[in-house]
Amino acid sequence: MRVAFLGLGVMGYPMAGHLVRKGGHEVTVYNRSAAKAAQWVAEYGGKSAATPRAAAEGCDLVAMCVGNDNDVRSVVYGDDGALAGMKSGALLVDHTTASALLARELHDKCAAQGIGFVDAPVSGGQAGAVNGQLGIMCGGETADFDRAKPILDVYAKGCVLIGGPGAGQLTKMVNQIVIAGLLQGLSEGLAFGKRSGLDLEKVISVISKGAAQSWQMENRWKAMNDMKFDGFGFAVEWMRKDLGICLDEAHRNGARLPVTAIIDQFYSQVEGRGGSRWDTCSLMQLLGSD
Amino acid sequence: MRVAFLGLGVMGYPMAGHLVRKGGHEVTVYNRSAAKAAQWVAEYGGKSAATPRAAAEGCDLVAMCVGNDNDVRSVVYGDDGALAGMKSGALLVDHTTASALLARELHDKCAAQGIGFVDAPVSGGQAGAVNGQLGIMCGGETADFDRAKPILDVYAKGCVLIGGPGAGQLTKMVNQIVIAGLLQGLSEGLAFGKRSGLDLEKVISVISKGAAQSWQMENRWKAMNDMKFDGFGFAVEWMRKDLGICLDEAHRNGARLPVTAIIDQFYSQVEGRGGSRWDTCSLMQLLGSD
Repeated sequence: MRVAFLGLGVMGYPMAGHLVRKGGHEVTVYNRSAAKAAQWVAEYGGKSAATPRAAAEGCDLVAMCVGNDNDVRSVVYGDDGALAGMKSGALLVDHTTASALLARELHDKCAAQGIGFVDAPVSGGQAGAVNGQLGIMCGGETADFDRAKPILDVYAKGCVLIGGPGAGQLTKMVNQIVIAGLLQGLSEGLAFGKRSGLDLEKVISVISKGAAQSWQMENRWKAMNDMKFDGFGFAVEWMRKDLGICLDEAHRNGARLPVTAIIDQFYSQVEGRGGSRWDTCSLMQLLGSD
Repeated sequence: MRVAFLGLGVMGYPMAGHLVRKGGHEVTVYNRSAAKAAQWVAEYGGKSAATPRAAAEGCDLVAMCVGNDNDVRSVVYGDDGALAGMKSGALLVDHTTASALLARELHDKCAAQGIGFVDAPVSGGQAGAVNGQLGIMCGGETADFDRAKPILDVYAKGCVLIGGPGAGQLTKMVNQIVIAGLLQGLSEGLAFGKRSGLDLEKVISVISKGAAQSWQMENRWKAMNDMKFDGFGFAVEWMRKDLGICLDEAHRNGARLPVTAIIDQFYSQVEGRGGSRWDTCSLMQLLGSD
């Protein structure tokens, strides 16, 4: 198949690579910085294009993974945007974590051109993208999802249609809200334990076998014990972007997020301490001994 | 060995039973309500005594699992208390979730009589007690722990010495703090998902495979989706007792528990809605559609 991939960041770069190596597709990439696109072509073969429109022309599926709602709009709309180049019957897939409002807007704009749309944010981080083991949460029409899934499966360990347009984005929001509260509880518990003089390795050996267990506990307790938050994981600035989307959506749908809202503010404090690039478990830094 | 068990509540009743059936010990029980002690003797054999002191006389180990700090003091101290009947060289083990302050006090009082003390709160709930699969978090001196462990192992899937006197209680507090924050995040996320019209079964099928995963998510999402919080799990009134201990200790040791403190207040609201006996995942009830 002919596939385009727009946005070669830490996620998109390896994802587009899987489309070539595992999918055997004819892939054209577009990236805002052309040097990165040239590097990708040198590594994987395929082609690069100067605009999203040029990348999308003649493709069966156009996937993208960019920064936020406005970045999505800038690669999809306008004379140089992907929609201007896409043919009727093609599919547009957005892996960006963005608003459900944008997903519904894209669905409608695509539908007007006879193009299918699937919102498909991912979880699993950079490691999941590199290993082709992402969780993909999809929203859209069943027929569109069914056509997209075999292509997306090259970088997925799970690719599930949750509901109509926007449902993928809303599911990603649930994921981020759950993680925020969980990490704050974990941070308060471990900071309390340190302050009490406990050996956290022994503490974790017991409590990780019971009702307090979580992926974050198992994978982050060591960093939290060492108070080393840099150089791994999911960055605070990305989490804040996502929590902003959650809080916006909650204003619209009336959901109550009392603790999520506070944690967003705590992350603002982490950023104030220079932690924009630290992993999200750095909430613990605010509870430290200083 | 001769063992006494004080307090035949939902936890103590089956725990004392394991000491007979799996441990083969000669067990004497004491319970505030004598009818429950008689029922236990009818079920397991062994003996019951009219006072903690009478139960403890001649025993190598006296274990207890009662309600709170004051309940512990009432069965241990005074003319009828266990300490009045215990012999030098015996061991006192407290499975009650109580304060670290009390644990250190008991350790010192026991030491003055040549008695070893281990604070040993448990996790795993009623099911863990019935199945003999409790997590036991211990504080005390190594020699005392080493003597107690083979006896406690009859109802443990893990029995670990964390540190000196009080370290078991402090570990249990870490456990409860972690769970409180985790459950609030899970509640906010799932309530947001429901409010957004998502099918939570599909949502969980994806997000439970990634960084949002937790024991609570896997074991409680269904109840939370159904908004059925009664008749299972760990009761809100017990959680509030435990969080009270955490917040008291934090006042002493200077640990910061900003979200734990708020969640304790949320649980107060749950109790106001009649939820004292509901499972702790009922935090979600406050985020519901009303």
